[in-house]
Amino acid sequence: MRGAVLYGPRDVRFEERESPRIVEPTDAIIRISLTCVCGSDLWPYRGLEAINGPTPMGHEYCGIVEEVGGAVRSVRPGQFVIGSFATSDNTCPNCRYGYQSSCMHREFIARAQAPVLRVPLADGTLVPTPGVPSDDLIPSLLTTSDVLGTGWFAADAANVKPGSTVVVVGDGAVGLLGVLSAKQMGAERIIAMSRHEKRQKLAREFGATDIVPERSDEGVKRIKDMTKGVGADSVLECVGTQQSMMQAIHCTRRGGYVSYVGVPHGVELNGEELFFAHVHLHGGPAPVRRYLPKLIDQVWNGKINPGKVFDLTLPLDQVGEGYRAMDERRAIKTLLRP
Amino acid sequence: MRGAVLYGPRDVRFEERESPRIVEPTDAIIRISLTCVCGSDLWPYRGLEAINGPTPMGHEYCGIVEEVGGAVRSVRPGQFVIGSFATSDNTCPNCRYGYQSSCMHREFIARAQAPVLRVPLADGTLVPTPGVPSDDLIPSLLTTSDVLGTGWFAADAANVKPGSTVVVVGDGAVGLLGVLSAKQMGAERIIAMSRHEKRQKLAREFGATDIVPERSDEGVKRIKDMTKGVGADSVLECVGTQQSMMQAIHCTRRGGYVSYVGVPHGVELNGEELFFAHVHLHGGPAPVRRYLPKLIDQVWNGKINPGKVFDLTLPLDQVGEGYRAMDERRAIKTLLRP
Repeated sequence: MRGAVLYGPRDVRFEERESPRIVEPTDAIIRISLTCVCGSDLWPYRGLEAINGPTPMGHEYCGIVEEVGGAVRSVRPGQFVIGSFATSDNTCPNCRYGYQSSCMHREFIARAQAPVLRVPLADGTLVPTPGVPSDDLIPSLLTTSDVLGTGWFAADAANVKPGSTVVVVGDGAVGLLGVLSAKQMGAERIIAMSRHEKRQKLAREFGATDIVPERSDEGVKRIKDMTKGVGADSVLECVGTQQSMMQAIHCTRRGGYVSYVGVPHGVELNGEELFFAHVHLHGGPAPVRRYLPKLIDQVWNGKINPGKVFDLTLPLDQVGEGYRAMDERRAIKTLLRP
Repeated sequence: MRGAVLYGPRDVRFEERESPRIVEPTDAIIRISLTCVCGSDLWPYRGLEAINGPTPMGHEYCGIVEEVGGAVRSVRPGQFVIGSFATSDNTCPNCRYGYQSSCMHREFIARAQAPVLRVPLADGTLVPTPGVPSDDLIPSLLTTSDVLGTGWFAADAANVKPGSTVVVVGDGAVGLLGVLSAKQMGAERIIAMSRHEKRQKLAREFGATDIVPERSDEGVKRIKDMTKGVGADSVLECVGTQQSMMQAIHCTRRGGYVSYVGVPHGVELNGEELFFAHVHLHGGPAPVRRYLPKLIDQVWNGKINPGKVFDLTLPLDQVGEGYRAMDERRAIKTLLRP
């Protein structure tokens, strides 16, 4: 079997890897229908996150169960399933509180840019769809595995409610699906901060009512002007840099909510500044498993079409070009067909 | 009129100051019945917060209205009133969202360790009691002006609910009243972190079910052991140092809530660490005005007796000793009689 392996900055190779097999009785092996490149894959790809030798890549996946371990009860061969980028037993206290991405037995999936994948803790991690989906539905189903679940968590953690004024910082696929999620949650005004025409267009299609191209202090000033000097109720930080985090905090009204859903890189928050900003702050790895049944249902029933974030589709053996296109912002998100 | 003035580290003087008078038509002048020393007064007293020349002190107050400006409508001379340490118009958007301590016209009260005080924005800041209280009720009423309101906000911002497991970091008067507040909100288990016998005793009286004397990593380990490795639902950070903030975050379960209510001094939060801690974080200057009617009612009706935090009463002219006793942790909180 061949899969994607990162060797160093901008060096992704498609090469022979050992085929996965059942290791624990709680494992499942799935044949991947579609996988993709995540914004978070770009941190190590760009050399901004260290890797420890050649690193198999990929954590967004959906496909057909081929085999399950002896202890697996809730999925069976032949089913189409989707799982989170973080495995979960779905029974430990953290899982029961809805924070499955901090499951006490969590592992991070890291080999999904491949034709076959081993998924540990299959019972608690995988959710079967009502049947085997038609091909046109699969890209949108794939998004529930991470990028949509993460955008949904961003909106949820930022307390988006019917009538809310929402700002989304970041026009990557997560930010765009944060817009879609805020729209689904009934936000009245959704301001997408983006200076990229194609992404602005998709943000509008997903429900953005306003676009602000300015960034940093200028961007904050625009948001304040648009909200009568008050700031937004809910701000979704979907980038992970110091600049984007401070921009998000400063766009928020006193008592408002800031969420952050990408691993922060080099972010330090000054306690006193945060104190007087008076915001609520919540984030972390998105507990995608919590949202999977609901989001699968919304996609299955055609209520949402999050698969539109994929604007480049490549065969898996061209995974290197898939990374390059996203790195150079030629593509929003690359879909890969094994 | 004589009042307290801070000249430099450990140098509080009781000296002649100009008597307050109406400046704006929205002002009120009140004759102070009781005032006190706040834990936050100790930062500049200890030289850990710079002052800009001799600084009049005091921001906790209650007393009888002597005079009001021409525009004041909701309080009148002769009434007993209590106000927050932060003035508020109670009509701006921030106030309407319940964040009166971030009122767009906020001023911080800073001259209350004196017999007479000018309160700006009297209509939005002051709340009259149902009548003139008996002397024994006044210490508890005074606490609603800041220390109880702040402890209450700590519990509220940490999402304390019936059945919650709560940890309180800090055994100052705010922490102790955080215990009382958590108890009122129905917490099932309240763990006070304190190594000071007298404060432990008061914490138990206010509703603490457990006492943990250990701090930092050892303290976190104890909390984890007591919660089956999970951590607490709600953690109230009532100190404001880097150590106490990290202790609070690490005691919290994934998806749990951390509040912080004292101005952080030298606190820096690492974004990545906060991300994987997976907590909710909320704090800032307590919106005491939001809680005043409810807390006055609870004190008035004898449901709570927060005035027990005062374990030293001095005439106002001995204010210097009042600061010393708190600085040396001989007193939890000093009550001052003008």
